[in-house]
Amino acid sequence: MTTPILAAVDIGGTKTAAALVRGGTVLARTQAPTPASGAAAVLDTAAALVRSLGGAPAAVGVGAPGLVDPDTGLVNAASSLIHGWSGVDVRAGLRDRLRLPAVVLGDVQAFTLGEAVHGAGRGLPTVLGVAVGTGVGGGVHAAGRLLTGRLGAAGHVGHVPVPQAVGRPCPCGVSGHVEAVASGPAMAAGYAARTGALGVALPEVVRRARAGDEYARAVIATAGEALGTALAGLANVLDPDRIVVGGGAAVPELLDALRPAFAASCLPVLGAVPLVPAALGTDAPLVGAAEAARRALASGAPGSPARPAAAPTGYAGTDVDPAVAR
Amino acid sequence: MTTPILAAVDIGGTKTAAALVRGGTVLARTQAPTPASGAAAVLDTAAALVRSLGGAPAAVGVGAPGLVDPDTGLVNAASSLIHGWSGVDVRAGLRDRLRLPAVVLGDVQAFTLGEAVHGAGRGLPTVLGVAVGTGVGGGVHAAGRLLTGRLGAAGHVGHVPVPQAVGRPCPCGVSGHVEAVASGPAMAAGYAARTGALGVALPEVVRRARAGDEYARAVIATAGEALGTALAGLANVLDPDRIVVGGGAAVPELLDALRPAFAASCLPVLGAVPLVPAALGTDAPLVGAAEAARRALASGAPGSPARPAAAPTGYAGTDVDPAVAR
Repeated sequence: MTTPILAAVDIGGTKTAAALVRGGTVLARTQAPTPASGAAAVLDTAAALVRSLGGAPAAVGVGAPGLVDPDTGLVNAASSLIHGWSGVDVRAGLRDRLRLPAVVLGDVQAFTLGEAVHGAGRGLPTVLGVAVGTGVGGGVHAAGRLLTGRLGAAGHVGHVPVPQAVGRPCPCGVSGHVEAVASGPAMAAGYAARTGALGVALPEVVRRARAGDEYARAVIATAGEALGTALAGLANVLDPDRIVVGGGAAVPELLDALRPAFAASCLPVLGAVPLVPAALGTDAPLVGAAEAARRALASGAPGSPARPAAAPTGYAGTDVDPAVAR
Repeated sequence: MTTPILAAVDIGGTKTAAALVRGGTVLARTQAPTPASGAAAVLDTAAALVRSLGGAPAAVGVGAPGLVDPDTGLVNAASSLIHGWSGVDVRAGLRDRLRLPAVVLGDVQAFTLGEAVHGAGRGLPTVLGVAVGTGVGGGVHAAGRLLTGRLGAAGHVGHVPVPQAVGRPCPCGVSGHVEAVASGPAMAAGYAARTGALGVALPEVVRRARAGDEYARAVIATAGEALGTALAGLANVLDPDRIVVGGGAAVPELLDALRPAFAASCLPVLGAVPLVPAALGTDAPLVGAAEAARRALASGAPGSPARPAAAPTGYAGTDVDPAVAR
C-alpha cells in the first residue's frame, strides 16, 4: 500500500499556507495573504493555493482558526481575525471547491497533531501540545488519537486558571486564565503596566530582557511560571509521554522560566515529564492537517457525513478552474 | 452474540468487593475486609470473593489502589493503604489465581469508566470523572476510551494547582494542589485550623455546617471553590460532554460551592458544561472494572502480553480450591 499524498491548508489571520505532504514530509508549500473580504474569499484563496501545487492529493486537511467542530465542519465560534468566519462550513467549502474529501480541525490542534506524530512527539502515544503566540493554545494527542471534545474545543490550554493570573482579564471573557499573563500580547501588556512604556511588542520586550531590563525579565518570568504551573496540572491529569511547546512567543527565556515552575507542581511519582521545544516550525499545522486527512481516509470516513461519491475525479492538478473554485 | 458475564474486583484500603456484572448491571456482589497482612493475602481474598460468586465469568477486571500500569499490570506506586503493595503484579495475581483473563486499572479510573459508560455519563463520548474522598481522584473517558497515560496515572484530578491551595502541602509531596484543600481529610484539617477543634472528621464538619457553624461552612466553601476552579480548567482543555462528581466527601454543600466557581472559570464559548452527581454509588468501580474486562475481551487482548492460552478452563464456579487460590 503506497503512502498517499495529502493536501494541507493552514488558515491564519494574516496568511494562508498550503502544502502537499506525504508521510509527514512536506513535498511542496505555498502561501498567500488571507483576504480581508470575508470567508468565501478565504476559502477561494485556500483552494487556489492547493490547486497551484498540483500533485493529485487524495484528500485535503484544513487547520482553521476559531472553534471548529470536526464532526460538522462548522466554525462554531470565530476569532475576530476573519470577517464573517463564524458559522462557515470550512469542510464543505474546501471539499466542494477542490472536489476532494476534506477534514477540518482547529489550527492549534493541527499543530499538536503534526508535532505529536511527525515532530517532537514522534512515536509517543500521549503528547500535550502547547502553542504560545497571540494566544495560548494547545491540543491533546492521547493514546494515539487527537482529542476534539464535545464542540471541537479540546486543547484550550490557555484557559487553565493559575494563581499567577488571579484577577487578570482573559481575552475569552472571564479572568484568571494562564493566557491572561502568558500570551505574547499579555507579556507586552505586562511590560507596559510595569514601565509605562506603551506599544512595546513582545520581540522588543524579549530584546530588552536579553539586554538586562529587569521589568522585561520579570514579565517573561511570570508568564513562564504561570504556564509551567498550568502545564503541571495538565501533566498530572493526562500523564503524557511528552509536552511539546511551540509558537512565536515561546522564546527560550519563557521556557527557562517555565521549567522550574512545572517541576515544582508535577506529581513526584510521575518523575520528570519531558518538556521539549516544537520541532517542525511553521510546518507543524500543515503536517498535522495532512495527518488528519490521512487518518480520515484510512478510517474510510473523510468529509463524512457528506463524503463525495467519487472524490478525486475532476481534480486536474494545477489547473485552476474558476467554476470549481467557486 | 451474547453479552458476557464479567467478574469485577474493587480493592480498597479497608474492604475488598467483588461482583458479577453483565451489560453494566451488577448481578451479584460480595465483600470482605481487606487483609492487613500484605499483598498476597489481598489477592487471595479478592480471588476467593470472585469464586464465591460462581457464574462462570469470561474475564476479571480489577480496580486497585495506587498507581497501576494497565500495560504491565504492576502497581508502580502504592498508597500506604496496603502493606507491600508497590511492585505487585495485580493482573497476573488474579489471572493465575482465577485462571481467567485479567485486566487491572486504578480504582478511580474504574469509577470513571463505570460512571461514563453505564452511569451518569451514559451514552456520552467524553466524560471527566471526579471522586472526592480521602483524596481527590478522577479519570478521563475521552472519545469513548479511558485515558491511562504513560504510567497509568491519567486522571489525577486532585493534583491540579489552584489559587485557593497556594502554599498548602499536598499528600503527594508538593504543594498547591486542589487535593490539599478539597479532600475529606483536608476539609477536616481546615476546620481544625480555623477552630482549634482537633479530631473532627468530615461527617461531623458537614453536620456542623448544616447546623449553621460558619467555620464549617467556610472550609467546605473553600474546598468547593478550589475544586470548581480546577474542574473548569480541565473542562476548557478536555471539552467534555459531562463531568461526574462522586465519592464519599462529595456532599451536596461541596457541589453547591463548586458550581459557581466552575461556571466563573469555564470558557464562555463552551456554555454550561453539565456537572452532575455520580449515579452508581459504590457499584461504580465494580461496573467500571467489568467494563474494562469486557473491552479487553472484545479487543482480543485481555491480560496480554501473558494471556493464558485457555482462559476459563479449570474455573469451577463457586468451588473454592486452595490450590488455585494460591
